Amino acid sequence: MSVSMYSLSAPVFTRMLENLLRWLEKAEAHAKAKGFDVDVLLAARLAPDMFPLVRQVQVAADAAKFGVARLAGVEAPSFPDDEKTLGELRERVRRTIEFVRSVPAAKLVGSEDRDVAVPRRDGSTTLKGQVFLEHFSLPNFFFHATTTYALLRHNGVELGKMDYLGAIPQAGGRP
Amino acid sequence: MSVSMYSLSAPVFTRMLENLLRWLEKAEAHAKAKGFDVDVLLAARLAPDMFPLVRQVQVAADAAKFGVARLAGVEAPSFPDDEKTLGELRERVRRTIEFVRSVPAAKLVGSEDRDVAVPRRDGSTTLKGQVFLEHFSLPNFFFHATTTYALLRHNGVELGKMDYLGAIPQAGGRP
Repeated sequence: MSVSMYSLSAPVFTRMLENLLRWLEKAEAHAKAKGFDVDVLLAARLAPDMFPLVRQVQVAADAAKFGVARLAGVEAPSFPDDEKTLGELRERVRRTIEFVRSVPAAKLVGSEDRDVAVPRRDGSTTLKGQVFLEHFSLPNFFFHATTTYALLRHNGVELGKMDYLGAIPQAGGRP
Repeated sequence: MSVSMYSLSAPVFTRMLENLLRWLEKAEAHAKAKGFDVDVLLAARLAPDMFPLVRQVQVAADAAKFGVARLAGVEAPSFPDDEKTLGELRERVRRTIEFVRSVPAAKLVGSEDRDVAVPRRDGSTTLKGQVFLEHFSLPNFFFHATTTYALLRHNGVELGKMDYLGAIPQAGGRP
């Protein structure tokens, strides 16, 4: 086993997005048990000037999609950000996982030293692939995944830390 | 530059903990401006069965401390989890950063293949260092850092995404 830009990105993203899919499934079960329309959760916010849940999920998925695409130097598929239901959001996440899995590990070889353009709210900047992944892409991805989890917990969905972390892959296993 | 267990852990942790210190400073300024006792924030929760802010910060700090200590095979300093004020919490985070910075990068060489014991709520398990870092330690660390941020935002502290991400280090720079 060796530490590589691939092991540090694609499988980390897809495992957490698979976990996120299960949180959304639990949200659906919770809404059904309580008798409310699960899609009201898409507008849930922790603060009025934070993104609502629908956007947190879209951005988490995009962080994974663009993270891997930028490092691999491949085009990422475009998704229109028009999800109106939890079911559509789940489909968005599934399609993102599918894309991330489709990128060959070999494409990321050497990406630690590649220049990557990073759009930031305070202006675009260029980073080396490794700095991009360790200090922008991963923290940003986990921010939106965790905020999605926090929004669901805040709204009563019964999730626990093990739902967040998911089953830990064994050594050598493909997560 | 090369991807290493060190670059993937210690500087990632310390950068985010430095950012977290600034969120806590902004919380103090916010409390002062609004005229409330900042230490009431330590008990803030997003759900009644989630950890309060004080514990989120302690666990984020411990995730960094134990993450690096386990990979390096060194003893981590023990902190008693008895913080009662935001000032004490900031000191806890500062001492954690100090410890993480004190661990030589050389100690983590080869840690990707080392066995690491991981305490989990569903029972302790042993993972290879790389799996531990990529699929447990980093996701767990970012979970508690992000939840700290979310709790502050939910309580009106004016933070933005750039406060979360912090200044991105330039290539070769020591973050």
